[in-house]
Amino acid sequence: MMMINENTICAISTPSGIGGMAVIRVSGKDAFSVVDKIFTPSKKEISLSAQKAYTLSHGKICKRNEILDDVIVGIFHSPNSFTGENTVEITCHGSLYIQQEILKLLLENGCTPAAPGEFTQRAFLNGKMDLSQAEAVADLIASASSSSHRLAMNQMRGGFSNELIQLRAKLLDFVSLIELELDFGEENVEFADRFKLLDLANNIKTTIEKLIQSFGLGNAIKNGIPVVIVGETNAGKSTLLNHLLNEDKAIVSEIHGTTRDIIEDIININGIIFRFIDTAGIRDTGDEIENLGIQRTFKKIEQASIIIWMIDTTHFNKEIEYIADKIVPYAKNKELIIVFNKIDKLNSEEQSVLEDEFLPHIPAKRIFLSAKFRKNTELLEKALMEAAKLPEWNNNDIIVTNIRHYEALSNALTALKRAETGLNENRSSDFVAQDIRECIHYLGEITGEISTDEILGNIFSKFCVGK
Amino acid sequence: MMMINENTICAISTPSGIGGMAVIRVSGKDAFSVVDKIFTPSKKEISLSAQKAYTLSHGKICKRNEILDDVIVGIFHSPNSFTGENTVEITCHGSLYIQQEILKLLLENGCTPAAPGEFTQRAFLNGKMDLSQAEAVADLIASASSSSHRLAMNQMRGGFSNELIQLRAKLLDFVSLIELELDFGEENVEFADRFKLLDLANNIKTTIEKLIQSFGLGNAIKNGIPVVIVGETNAGKSTLLNHLLNEDKAIVSEIHGTTRDIIEDIININGIIFRFIDTAGIRDTGDEIENLGIQRTFKKIEQASIIIWMIDTTHFNKEIEYIADKIVPYAKNKELIIVFNKIDKLNSEEQSVLEDEFLPHIPAKRIFLSAKFRKNTELLEKALMEAAKLPEWNNNDIIVTNIRHYEALSNALTALKRAETGLNENRSSDFVAQDIRECIHYLGEITGEISTDEILGNIFSKFCVGK
Repeated sequence: MMMINENTICAISTPSGIGGMAVIRVSGKDAFSVVDKIFTPSKKEISLSAQKAYTLSHGKICKRNEILDDVIVGIFHSPNSFTGENTVEITCHGSLYIQQEILKLLLENGCTPAAPGEFTQRAFLNGKMDLSQAEAVADLIASASSSSHRLAMNQMRGGFSNELIQLRAKLLDFVSLIELELDFGEENVEFADRFKLLDLANNIKTTIEKLIQSFGLGNAIKNGIPVVIVGETNAGKSTLLNHLLNEDKAIVSEIHGTTRDIIEDIININGIIFRFIDTAGIRDTGDEIENLGIQRTFKKIEQASIIIWMIDTTHFNKEIEYIADKIVPYAKNKELIIVFNKIDKLNSEEQSVLEDEFLPHIPAKRIFLSAKFRKNTELLEKALMEAAKLPEWNNNDIIVTNIRHYEALSNALTALKRAETGLNENRSSDFVAQDIRECIHYLGEITGEISTDEILGNIFSKFCVGK
Repeated sequence: MMMINENTICAISTPSGIGGMAVIRVSGKDAFSVVDKIFTPSKKEISLSAQKAYTLSHGKICKRNEILDDVIVGIFHSPNSFTGENTVEITCHGSLYIQQEILKLLLENGCTPAAPGEFTQRAFLNGKMDLSQAEAVADLIASASSSSHRLAMNQMRGGFSNELIQLRAKLLDFVSLIELELDFGEENVEFADRFKLLDLANNIKTTIEKLIQSFGLGNAIKNGIPVVIVGETNAGKSTLLNHLLNEDKAIVSEIHGTTRDIIEDIININGIIFRFIDTAGIRDTGDEIENLGIQRTFKKIEQASIIIWMIDTTHFNKEIEYIADKIVPYAKNKELIIVFNKIDKLNSEEQSVLEDEFLPHIPAKRIFLSAKFRKNTELLEKALMEAAKLPEWNNNDIIVTNIRHYEALSNALTALKRAETGLNENRSSDFVAQDIRECIHYLGEITGEISTDEILGNIFSKFCVGK
């Protein structure tokens, strides 16, 4: 087990910037005494450690006799706090100056600046939550859709952990049966019914496989489904995108500023995030530099799950065939949606000719719409949902969203399969037991029973400071 | 007096964006019952209105049986809250999704979205603070230097209000003396000693004039001192600026993003903000478009209090004379600092020639430095502080920072001067009394004893939402 850092840490826990108020969190054994040094309560002059848990005190924070701010201070006693340690939450006015000055004062009075995710890391180290729950805290904060939020919330509240506890219980059961056999090995007694053991192994395998398979869905929900729009420059790509973005623009731009380096357009359809990867137009050109851009577009198509090919129905030209040649090969393992734009300028006969005769051999969904007049764009949203091919899932289903968990589960599965083979081939029980122990070990990596400084460092360094 | 809106309002009060945590504030008579509908406490199932004031409750917020978040809820009972109303502060995880969903839930359950500054407006309307204190809340949040913070804090805590209360008491004393005379007017008795009254008027006038004069300092502290750097493009302007910005770059960029449309470079020297207005280089050119840019530079010079003229000492040419002709006229009513850059390439003799012979007739401070090697840049900082010409002031001095207050004080002074003239010219007491009443009226506008929907609308619409 890791050593818990004895320092008392502090950080601004609310989003960075100016606001009505901000919250500075102080956690550690000296949290009360450090804050006592800078905080003067309005009513009774009693120290914070003497205050009841879960209470708020009004007062002022002073720096060398000058009032820095009027604040409200919230008290949490160990172990009944987020971190499990004594915690003080200082709610101050949300000026950058005040936030920074209070932070400086805390540091001057004995606090250490919290590392990214250190509050959550302490919650884990103090046994307030397991590692997969701690990871879910970061996912919860980053989640931008109802689906990703639901998965993170379920994981944070222990849904996944419970599944793993059950798996572990079964595996321990398994291993104890085998080891019982081992203990009496010399007498050549076979206590464990190998058929029963095989059945148990199979049962566990099915559960782990189901979890591994859920990662496709979990990853799509957590990171969004990558989509590219290709087509000529004048096909109306940006008009369409702007329309689809419509309501989510505000939330999306905020996400951009804070969590992503590359600006992508993100569209939320029925709680599922579609990430629109920007591409250069595709056309047949001799220009070398333009060709480089087009090559890059094809690389982006590789990353996408769904390709929207947008065609200006008023403007068929030789580029169509060029693009068709380039795109059709992708249609085999990706979802292709052909969007015929500007249907306001098409009569019904022209449209039905296109429906029947435009590249009929290509397996693609065909949508007729007008991006400009916002006609039929809902059909495209429906087609995107279908193309996402997300399986049905219930709110209580355990879905793996984290690649670290996916890898640990894959390793656990490999070990389990080795154990299964061992049983089938009647190998020595001690080999089988070792494989099962290895399987338990990998599951323990997920919940953090098995953890190293390196694993924890990797996980928590990706958190924001203040959480 | 204004009618208080009976609605229960809610808003996110922490800075916008993603963070470890966020706080949503709910205020109004139904604050407890609205939050009761969406909040399930972890421990006892008691309604929030039955909870003690100044306590925290842990629990969850659910939306149609689905858990939206684990939250901490803080309880403030009327009148002991910021607004003076029942208030609940919901601390949730700082995901945008959670923040917005909780806000939506509150609105669905009977809350109204808070208008900008509405919490502070309610604090004013409920008598928790006067209008100048309410205005100081916004100043406090916006303040980015120790000086502007100190002034806002002093004003928020009632420093200015107390000064006005004293003034008002003196004026009421004054008017009652005069009105006593009026009541007995028919008997032609002159109760009030007109010399004594003149003395009192003079005393009040001095106080108001001192406040009016302080606005120059207050405005400089609050809004910063505007500075332009002019000179040729290669004189090293941006190297110098980058060096001066050095430590403050981080805080400054955050301020830019949130409160200012125009990006200016802001430098904090000893707690005073200098705003560096960006200008195009000045040179003698026939190019029409470039000339337009240069004209714009001169407009910006008009706005500045301090002009830094930067000269590349390795590169004297005809432009120097051209710039001198253009800039010297400004030196009469603005502070001019001539910066000789690249002194690393100068020997001491060359420097002393420049010191003695470069435009000796121009009243300007001369600084020799190397922006590139950061040599002597502290001399420029010192020169800027001197050029700012800020009078000495004590922490307890009342300094006017708000143009609305400045205007009200100016109007009050005009009325008072009329009263003084009336006294001097032995005019009828009722005229004099009317002037004093007018003076009191204008002072009342500052504290909000006199206020209209329009005045309040103007003031609070400039606040951020959530304060």
